Amino acid sequence: MNQQDSLKQLVGQTAAKLVKNGMIVGLGTGSTVRFLVDALGKRVQEEGLAITGVTTSNRTTAQATSLGIKIVDLDDVDHVDLTIDGADEVDRDFYGIKGGGGALLWEKIVNDASTNNVWIVDQSKVVDRIGAFGVPVEVIPFGASKVFAKFEHQGYQPQWRTDEAGQLYRTDENNYIIDLKLGPLTDLLALAEDLINTVGVVEHGLFLNRVNQVIVGNETGITTLTAP
Amino acid sequence: MNQQDSLKQLVGQTAAKLVKNGMIVGLGTGSTVRFLVDALGKRVQEEGLAITGVTTSNRTTAQATSLGIKIVDLDDVDHVDLTIDGADEVDRDFYGIKGGGGALLWEKIVNDASTNNVWIVDQSKVVDRIGAFGVPVEVIPFGASKVFAKFEHQGYQPQWRTDEAGQLYRTDENNYIIDLKLGPLTDLLALAEDLINTVGVVEHGLFLNRVNQVIVGNETGITTLTAP
Repeated sequence: MNQQDSLKQLVGQTAAKLVKNGMIVGLGTGSTVRFLVDALGKRVQEEGLAITGVTTSNRTTAQATSLGIKIVDLDDVDHVDLTIDGADEVDRDFYGIKGGGGALLWEKIVNDASTNNVWIVDQSKVVDRIGAFGVPVEVIPFGASKVFAKFEHQGYQPQWRTDEAGQLYRTDENNYIIDLKLGPLTDLLALAEDLINTVGVVEHGLFLNRVNQVIVGNETGITTLTAP
Repeated sequence: MNQQDSLKQLVGQTAAKLVKNGMIVGLGTGSTVRFLVDALGKRVQEEGLAITGVTTSNRTTAQATSLGIKIVDLDDVDHVDLTIDGADEVDRDFYGIKGGGGALLWEKIVNDASTNNVWIVDQSKVVDRIGAFGVPVEVIPFGASKVFAKFEHQGYQPQWRTDEAGQLYRTDENNYIIDLKLGPLTDLLALAEDLINTVGVVEHGLFLNRVNQVIVGNETGITTLTAP
């Protein structure tokens, strides 16, 4: 395992300890969350930890189910106690970008429904100013090239997300993703407002003030950032 | 044909005359638009009118195609010259509500892409203040009951849209519709902003400042309202 994966595993295992018996737990998506789900599965199997999981992607559902974690639909629970998810970038004001894995819509819906939200990241994800990663935007396929053209006109540097076969990537809701390659961002709130008001946009990957705690893995161990 | 249908037919036939040879025409959805599409089909067949149509629902595509109107995907044209659609309510400030037919998302996307927008309505649709019809909101199925609960909490009087079989209605994008039964609305802009910023909401039926002309059928004939 390379060093970055070791850090991902470390934060995944650390976050798994936050989960208590009886909790309804939101499970994110991505390579770091895979380690979390592995660690939770181990606790379910070895300690008899009883939890109910809600997932943010079909991939996570498949992994969690295979490990014996009980998964239900978000609409079958009346709340979520704690959601643990990764992030593609996060700054020290708790502004983040998600959607590199393509699951930003369900991730934001579960985040929104959750009493507490924790992100687990390796140190490479903590940045002074978010944006270099790009801002993923989920768009309705109908008329999507009109949205793309509008983004181009606005100077948003749009790129179509493609899959491994070179086809347009499809989300779990069968939508497209356009990545905005704007570089480090200054006016996040204005950008978020413009995106959500663009007809054809379902959701975007700017997660502003949506996390209570960020657990960061670095060479010297774990650093926890707690939002005010 | 009852009087209301006669008025719908009258405005549909009137609007069909706005279409010129070579135009790319957006075709809405609903009972009034059916008469428009009938009239356009007649012009295509009898006058050899050459137009390219873009539709806002699978229903309209089926009707138009059956009448010999050439239909292409929105993304296959670089602009739309004129879109003619119905509306469920419109006031004299050109604020409208659409979505009674369930096609509000595609309708808003085509509206947004169109250089000019004309609505065709019978007189019953013109109101002092929109809202009594209800505000349709298209929501992602994943977590939809959380959105419904949020609307309830906000006093938005939500109701699930159901189909004829009593099942939850599915849009052409396979989403749900929640109708907000708020009555005549005072602060439209604030409501629109709140709805579009609600995670899980794809689009809503408030069409504010999105129409250039409204053609109204009434007992004495046709009245045309033109936006400033």
